[in-house]
Order: sequence, then C-alpha cells, then structure tokens
Amino acid sequence: MSNIAAIAAARSVQTTPTITAFERSPDGGMGLARDTRVRWALEEVDQAYEVRLVSFSAMKEPAHRAVHPFGQIPTYEEGDLALFESGAIIFHIAERHRGLLPEDADARARAITWMFAAVSTVEPPILERENARLLEGGEIWSAERLPLVTERVRKRLRELSDRLGDADWLDGTFSAGDLMMVSVLQRLKPSGLLEEFPRLAAYVARAEARPAYRRAFAAQRAVNTDRPVAVG
Amino acid sequence: MSNIAAIAAARSVQTTPTITAFERSPDGGMGLARDTRVRWALEEVDQAYEVRLVSFSAMKEPAHRAVHPFGQIPTYEEGDLALFESGAIIFHIAERHRGLLPEDADARARAITWMFAAVSTVEPPILERENARLLEGGEIWSAERLPLVTERVRKRLRELSDRLGDADWLDGTFSAGDLMMVSVLQRLKPSGLLEEFPRLAAYVARAEARPAYRRAFAAQRAVNTDRPVAVG
Repeated sequence: MSNIAAIAAARSVQTTPTITAFERSPDGGMGLARDTRVRWALEEVDQAYEVRLVSFSAMKEPAHRAVHPFGQIPTYEEGDLALFESGAIIFHIAERHRGLLPEDADARARAITWMFAAVSTVEPPILERENARLLEGGEIWSAERLPLVTERVRKRLRELSDRLGDADWLDGTFSAGDLMMVSVLQRLKPSGLLEEFPRLAAYVARAEARPAYRRAFAAQRAVNTDRPVAVG
Repeated sequence: MSNIAAIAAARSVQTTPTITAFERSPDGGMGLARDTRVRWALEEVDQAYEVRLVSFSAMKEPAHRAVHPFGQIPTYEEGDLALFESGAIIFHIAERHRGLLPEDADARARAITWMFAAVSTVEPPILERENARLLEGGEIWSAERLPLVTERVRKRLRELSDRLGDADWLDGTFSAGDLMMVSVLQRLKPSGLLEEFPRLAAYVARAEARPAYRRAFAAQRAVNTDRPVAVG
C-alpha cells in the first residue's frame, strides 16, 4: 500500500453507509437502475451497506432533494457526508478502499479517465436513445428518427470496441473505470445493440460473472421481486 | 496543507504538460470547445502548458486515437502519462495542485460530486438539444421537437438554480465542481436559456470574471482569430 493509500485508509470512516434505491425500479429488477453500480462497488471492496428505498413521489420532495438536488437515486450517506451521482459515489468508495483503483499514480489517473468517459462520452447517446423510445415513442417522427439516434450509439460502441481490442479490461486490471463503463453499456441490453459488438458483449459478460456483481444484482433484484412491480 | 496533499505535491511531476485543442474551433473562438475548461484549470493553479492544435481530419487518425479513443479534444500529455476526457484531466490537475479541490475530505468529495453532476446530469440534455439543432435542424420534425428537448434542459436548470440559491458557488469556495458546471452551462450561451435563470446567469458571469478564466479564454481566442475561421 502506498503512503497515500495508508493515510487514506487510516482516515476512513467506519460508519456503515446508507444508499438510496427505487422502491420499485422502472426495470422491474433487471439491474439497470443506478443503485446497482453503487452496490457493485461496495461489494467489490466488501463494505457492508444499508439501503433506504424511495418512491417516485418521495424522490421529488424537499427531504430527498436536500441530498440529491436533481431528485434521483442513488445517494450515499455516511456520517455527516451526503453524496449523489453514482460516479462520484463510486470514486469515493474507491478512494477509501483498496481494489477499485490502481495504486500506481498514472494507472489510477487512466482508470479515472474511463469513469468520466463512461458518463460523459458513452452514456449521453445511450440516454438520448432511451429518451427517443420512452419519451418520444408516440411522436410522429419516432420511427424515422430512431435509426439516426441509434447510429450515434453505434459510433461510440465501435470506438470503444476498437480500444478494448482483445483485452479483458480497458486498462490493465479491473477498475472502477470498467465498473462504470459496464454499467453504462448494460443500459443497452434491451436494445440488442451490444450483440453487434462481440468484444463489448463479452466484456459485459465478463464483468457480470464477478462474484461482487452477482451479489449486487441479487440484492437489487430481491427488492424488486418481493412484490408486484407496477411500473413497466 | 494536509499530509495527503503534502505527499501528492512532493510527487507532482514537473514536466510541462501538453494539451490538444481544435486547429479551428467550430465556435470560432467563443470558448465553448472543451480545451477552454482545461486551460482554465491550468490557469487557476498557475501551471504552464503547451498546446498542440489538431485538425478535424487528424483527430480521427490512429495517432490521435491512440491518446483519445473517441477522436476528440482535449487530451493531456505529461511525461509518460496520456489522458483524455476534460473531467478526468481537470481532476488530475486538481489532485496535483492546490486551489481546485478543498482539503477537507468531505468538502472534497462533494466538489467531485459536482464535477460528475456537470457531465453526467446537466450536460446530457444540453448535448441532446445541440444535436437537435445541429444534426437534425433540417429534419421535418425539427421545429415541433425542439421545444420538448428544450424543456428537458429547463428542468435541470431549474433544479440547479434552486440548489445554488443565493450562494456564489455550489458548495463553499470555488472548486473544480464549479469550473466543470460553468463550462457546461456556457454551452447554452447561444440559446438564451441561461437568461431565464438569473441566478445561473450570474453564476456563470461570476466565474468568467475570474482572472484565470479570462486568461484561458484569451488564449483559446488567439488561436481562433489569428486567421479566418472556415467552420461556422
């Protein structure tokens, strides 16, 4: 462990953190809601956590917005610290524990680069495509426009697949950068687009085979299958 | 300075970093290209830097893609380290120098949260609106669809304005979180939308009055006004 990591570990707060998740996830437990990636990070570093479930209406209330100004999940609370944004939460977890970021300074900076690339470059066209289907699926332009938006997603997938090549992970060993990237790619599961890029499909499958991911997936699924899911 | 910051400073590499920027920015020097935010961060911490200008065609070539897999600017090279993604580059700069992240651990985690919120929550609807205008401006649905997309941007601006309230910055003193958020909001300048949220317009103006921002803006402008700009 480097000196920096040793000091960070010594300063680490031992309070069990509490995260928030959907009371009923819109995906019915497919693991595509953003709490799954935070659960996954916590499982990778073997950190116990509590979960507070939040309804769609409670998410928009002042009490929740005090922690998450944009009225979403997940949030992360640990003693006096309250965070939102899955990327920032996962980075916080990765800084406090060994296992999600390399100790070599340059490799660590590159892993953080992939965390930002996931949410800043790869996810936006995927979100745009989700909006095209979910928010504009009934508009008259929907059928004609969807191929344009899908092509924007394909462009990013092609570039990502070229960079990954035949490697297991984006830069050396598995890191928080892979965790974020895989979580973003998983949003494409219902689309079938991942299968057009076999290296990316294998990359996602490789991540999903990790024991920590399987525990995280099972935990979110249990929340969403204990009772009927109203939102389709 | 905390122990961690002292160690980080001692380890800091003194090589002058090189960033990339558009040979001719699509905005003709308005400062909206993503190299401006990296220049700004470097100016805030008083770090000298070199700039390598890249043409649109060279950005898509293997030599540039070796550094930036998505064929964009900016990149950041410092000795053997090569990074892309403005958020990751700015975080790297902020970790190596004092001035862009608070030393208190909780305040630091919250500042990083705003960095992710900027690119992950606020920027995507802004990008979607830019696509609606620039890539789909000639489509038959363009006029009818733009108000829907604009409303998605307004929703985020309203939430951000509510959180900012009457404060100068998002969480205490100016941080890399503000630098990223302001850079994202600046993309709305041509739209007039910022003016609908006076607190956000004042927040952006406050940031732009910082000497470091003014130096960064002038530097990118000099690149783009030394000769005629072909791309409108």
